[in-house]
Amino acid sequence: MAHLLSTSYSVKFSSGCKPSTKPLIQDSVVFPKSVTFQTSKTPFTRLLLQAQRSRSNCTVCATTLSASREASNEPSQGVHQSSSEPSKSKRVMVIGGDGYCGWATALHLSKKGYEVAIVDSLVRRLFDQQLGIDSLTPISSIHDRLRCWKALTGKSIELYIGDICDFEFLTDAFKSFEPEAVVHFGEQRSAPYSMIDRSRAVYTQNNNVIGTLNVLFAIKEFGEQCHLVKLGTMGEYGTPNIDIEEGYITITHNGRTDTLPYPKQASSFYHLSKVHDSNNIAFTCKAWGIRATDLNQGVVYGVITDETEMHEELINRLDYDGVFGTALNRFCVQAAVGHPLTVYGKGGQTRGYLDIRDTVQCVEIAIANPAQAGEFRVFNQFTEQFSVNELAALVTKAGEKLGLDVHTTSVPNPRVEAEEHYYNAKHTKLIELGLKPHLLSDSLLDSLLNFAVKYEDRVDKKQIMPSVSWRKIGAKPKTVAA
Amino acid sequence: MAHLLSTSYSVKFSSGCKPSTKPLIQDSVVFPKSVTFQTSKTPFTRLLLQAQRSRSNCTVCATTLSASREASNEPSQGVHQSSSEPSKSKRVMVIGGDGYCGWATALHLSKKGYEVAIVDSLVRRLFDQQLGIDSLTPISSIHDRLRCWKALTGKSIELYIGDICDFEFLTDAFKSFEPEAVVHFGEQRSAPYSMIDRSRAVYTQNNNVIGTLNVLFAIKEFGEQCHLVKLGTMGEYGTPNIDIEEGYITITHNGRTDTLPYPKQASSFYHLSKVHDSNNIAFTCKAWGIRATDLNQGVVYGVITDETEMHEELINRLDYDGVFGTALNRFCVQAAVGHPLTVYGKGGQTRGYLDIRDTVQCVEIAIANPAQAGEFRVFNQFTEQFSVNELAALVTKAGEKLGLDVHTTSVPNPRVEAEEHYYNAKHTKLIELGLKPHLLSDSLLDSLLNFAVKYEDRVDKKQIMPSVSWRKIGAKPKTVAA
Repeated sequence: MAHLLSTSYSVKFSSGCKPSTKPLIQDSVVFPKSVTFQTSKTPFTRLLLQAQRSRSNCTVCATTLSASREASNEPSQGVHQSSSEPSKSKRVMVIGGDGYCGWATALHLSKKGYEVAIVDSLVRRLFDQQLGIDSLTPISSIHDRLRCWKALTGKSIELYIGDICDFEFLTDAFKSFEPEAVVHFGEQRSAPYSMIDRSRAVYTQNNNVIGTLNVLFAIKEFGEQCHLVKLGTMGEYGTPNIDIEEGYITITHNGRTDTLPYPKQASSFYHLSKVHDSNNIAFTCKAWGIRATDLNQGVVYGVITDETEMHEELINRLDYDGVFGTALNRFCVQAAVGHPLTVYGKGGQTRGYLDIRDTVQCVEIAIANPAQAGEFRVFNQFTEQFSVNELAALVTKAGEKLGLDVHTTSVPNPRVEAEEHYYNAKHTKLIELGLKPHLLSDSLLDSLLNFAVKYEDRVDKKQIMPSVSWRKIGAKPKTVAA
Repeated sequence: MAHLLSTSYSVKFSSGCKPSTKPLIQDSVVFPKSVTFQTSKTPFTRLLLQAQRSRSNCTVCATTLSASREASNEPSQGVHQSSSEPSKSKRVMVIGGDGYCGWATALHLSKKGYEVAIVDSLVRRLFDQQLGIDSLTPISSIHDRLRCWKALTGKSIELYIGDICDFEFLTDAFKSFEPEAVVHFGEQRSAPYSMIDRSRAVYTQNNNVIGTLNVLFAIKEFGEQCHLVKLGTMGEYGTPNIDIEEGYITITHNGRTDTLPYPKQASSFYHLSKVHDSNNIAFTCKAWGIRATDLNQGVVYGVITDETEMHEELINRLDYDGVFGTALNRFCVQAAVGHPLTVYGKGGQTRGYLDIRDTVQCVEIAIANPAQAGEFRVFNQFTEQFSVNELAALVTKAGEKLGLDVHTTSVPNPRVEAEEHYYNAKHTKLIELGLKPHLLSDSLLDSLLNFAVKYEDRVDKKQIMPSVSWRKIGAKPKTVAA
């Protein structure tokens, strides 16, 4: 699949955006006639990159960026600061900025006054095509999204379309944008996807591990002070019979004591790829002095953030299918369309969860409070923990309030995992830095459920059931027939 | 580099071997006129494979394999058995069987009565060419090696030349040979090599991780009962301030207890690749029921095994250069040619060491006592631990006995590692299964030193000093000029 991803390109277009038919905000919006997207690999682009390089060293030019910046939270000076006071000219590269968490994060940081560049191969959209699945919400192209954002806020988000496994492309993006922080969402992020067949398992580990290695080399070579904010997953820890700490654990053994990396027990080729990344990053912090924050994120739910709800063109994706759908999102869609909530096995599987509005908040906090040079910092990024059965009960209760008739069914667990286990994971570090969690209340469920009801016509019930088995994964490529 | 490695081929040749000028054994040897090597990818080969498949299911045909088997340790029936009683028809695939440990192991197992196939891309020989380095000992081609072995013992070792990252090639080899055990040495095994530049770092992790994933898929698909014996490294553990256990550690934390994977702190992209492998293999044992033994090997020294010393054509490689040379081998070569022993930094770095005769013994023990289905078993494979300063002192003492004037010098440490630290690693499991260690005594040093003296004319002193820096590794490809 790599050959599909190795192409990067530059585009410049000047067609007007189509007018929005259903603005989610009240203000009328005029779209600009021309927006430029910079990518690499053509002579024209290299000229653009040259111009950008000059600009990013020139504070005067930066004032041309935003016409409506006054309306946003103005960034302030300083390195260590609270979430609401980012550095004035802080340039943040969001790798994977067209994805579920990446898109919400890119907009949030742009709104907060950061200069943002999105780096994305757009391959996540190709996965949808290949698997015959689609987001519940109709999402716009990245180009239309960015045009709309510019029109609404006056803020430009730079766009580099290419594959970070292509180091020449990544080099150009780094040299051009000169990021002070890199938020790295740019990985294949589905456990079931990684368990479809051998080629997807290999793709996931190669893509994630080599992409992250390239980011580390780019930081070492082109921006040694740059802070890497890397998205990991709580799934790296597995379900040990002891409390899960944030990245490290102090062990006393045979009379001696040391603080060591927390033992990992990942349970899919995807989760394993994140463990590999964490180990690689920890090493480069020690050997090269890289500053890095590993955000071990729980299961994300929700579709709305303050920024994505500004306009329908900015709407985020919502995956409910058996491959990319996360548990709570899937349950809400199932409740909305009268499909039984599909609990895998006994339903005692307990995990950490968080609202996507907290994802963007956590990333901003990490950027605003960077790791020290040589520090490999690990935060567990979730706000509450639930078992699958508890989630099903919450959705059932909220659904009944909306007059929905919600049932739950147990389906054979396609995964290999403990279905009843101890689970107690620490998550205090982000709270200490200022995170104000959105907790999963009935009102939140109503909101998410209402969203599912709004788009229920788009639900493809065939995509809901699990289609990937941990045990039956084969060596031969698994094709999806129409 | 991958494109260089993806070619597999079949060869059949009937030219007579050149007569050996310096037999290491006393018996005269007649080389056979024709030997067939089976590989994949041609119609002719596929016919061969077909024939092999029939054969390997036919115990009568198996008797045609060896004319001189009576002289060797005859394999016996049974699954769980001691080192000296392997299964009669046990077929062992040695991946990386043309390398330092792999070659010695392949011959040892063949001698012991196992049916052996070597799978190797021969890329290790290419590394020598590219880096302008060479084994101290003059090694023959794999083809000549196998011809000689056949002539000496009557035993055939099958040869599959190709890259295990090419799954089609690996599939053909598996279907053809139908291994009951796979010994996997087939990885880029040098820490300095992985730290030369970005492309070598990426190559190392991609080659090692994806190659091992392919082996796991091949076992799942084509030989679910096959026992994987995977070479890891003691370097995966790093140098924690507590005792190192064999793969797992029982932790009591906040009043609860669990036995978890021992925390790893690898210190090069190579060592990290082995950690990634271990994590991937552990997962497949759990999810698929793979039976696997992870041999966390210490630093290997020595060049002679009972089999490789039978004839000069069988001689093993001995690396003393700054990239592939292991510490004790390098010290002995340095002592032989009057080069100061190069201690990196303070020399307090302590590691586990073992004689290559114990490497082959340990692998045989692991094969003869396979892991259970679903078991991920970890053995620490070394016999003694020494600091670098202790090694230098031992070589100095042994050198003086031979009349050598041995000096030691400290050179700036090219690595990022603790130079003074606690180190106490357990290594009892292989002993319990019957390992009889060759300990590092003065006589062993004499023997290794004598070997170094014998080939001192071949020493290229330019290759001795460290040439790769952990901190200075760059993103650009590092080329070696003539």
